[in-house]
Amino acid sequence: MTGTSGPIEFWFEFSSPYAYFAALEIEELARRHGRSVAWRPFLLGVVFKLTKMAPLPDQSLRGDYAFRDWERLARLRGVPYTLPPKFPIVSLVPARMFYAAEQMNPEAAPKFALGLFDGLYAKGLDITDAGVAATLGASVGFDAPALVRSASDQRYKDALRARTDEAIGKGVFGSPFFIVDGEPFWGSDRLPMLEIWLSRGGW
Amino acid sequence: MTGTSGPIEFWFEFSSPYAYFAALEIEELARRHGRSVAWRPFLLGVVFKLTKMAPLPDQSLRGDYAFRDWERLARLRGVPYTLPPKFPIVSLVPARMFYAAEQMNPEAAPKFALGLFDGLYAKGLDITDAGVAATLGASVGFDAPALVRSASDQRYKDALRARTDEAIGKGVFGSPFFIVDGEPFWGSDRLPMLEIWLSRGGW
Repeated sequence: MTGTSGPIEFWFEFSSPYAYFAALEIEELARRHGRSVAWRPFLLGVVFKLTKMAPLPDQSLRGDYAFRDWERLARLRGVPYTLPPKFPIVSLVPARMFYAAEQMNPEAAPKFALGLFDGLYAKGLDITDAGVAATLGASVGFDAPALVRSASDQRYKDALRARTDEAIGKGVFGSPFFIVDGEPFWGSDRLPMLEIWLSRGGW
Repeated sequence: MTGTSGPIEFWFEFSSPYAYFAALEIEELARRHGRSVAWRPFLLGVVFKLTKMAPLPDQSLRGDYAFRDWERLARLRGVPYTLPPKFPIVSLVPARMFYAAEQMNPEAAPKFALGLFDGLYAKGLDITDAGVAATLGASVGFDAPALVRSASDQRYKDALRARTDEAIGKGVFGSPFFIVDGEPFWGSDRLPMLEIWLSRGGW
């Protein structure tokens, strides 16, 4: 791995619809440029405590805009989207489970993340329920009981905490957030700019 | 003016570099779709008091990102940009002066706004100084002494306050912010989406 061929770090919070939209595009984008994607769920709420930002639904004016924006983004891109029945969610369970899945089978873990996003935003499933999340994992080949256990396993509590600390250390303040060759890009809106960056090797 | 041929409302804060980048593109974009642009400076600080958001430079992590982002946006677009010596600025003077200019000569007022942006971000001028701002107005045909007087004229204090209240009433929470046929778009990143909206008449 060299400085110009490292993975695209894809930092995201499962409770972020913008991350869902980005998740649907990032692997294809990376492939176009011969890059891999490092999927990195983290706890945006921990970051917000540090930056004193509020979750979008709690922000006056900006929250209303976001709810409307998610709907029109989905229509524009022709992808399924419904606001989850419980929203925002506390993503501890799916995020810990992701890191367990990554250890069990790194190649299949992104498929699990996509399955979780799809479960939450396309199917309206409660992915904060360990049983529900593990069933989604099973559908892409993971052992469901092992995933359920991982949700309360100290190793994966620690793994998620460490990744969240790593995110903060790298300046990640929102979701989704991409880092490629050290260059940060915030927001699903910035995928076109990220792609120019990859094409030119920066500017 | 019908619902599908009204102006693009361009709400902006002079102290916002993202608004500067958008200002350089918006008239050309509007022309491509047979629209006009209603330039609408407002006081973002007043909105932030309501939404409890902080100015970008005061936000940890996000502030650092923004400073870096402005530099790379300017390089990508090939436009001049330097962080103003005093930043952020309090934009009362240029914003009041803009509304005075708009009353004197509506057609020339956008050129004055562009001159103020250029003065601030390309030439490093202190546009909070009424004399400096009025000189920029004179270079696009306005009467400099009249502009200087307008900066402390109650009519334009009131006009700016009214526009800022209007912005809040319309859900404007950041800068730049565009409204076209009632549809809101936040951020210079959203100009491509706004353009798709104009092309299709919504989606």
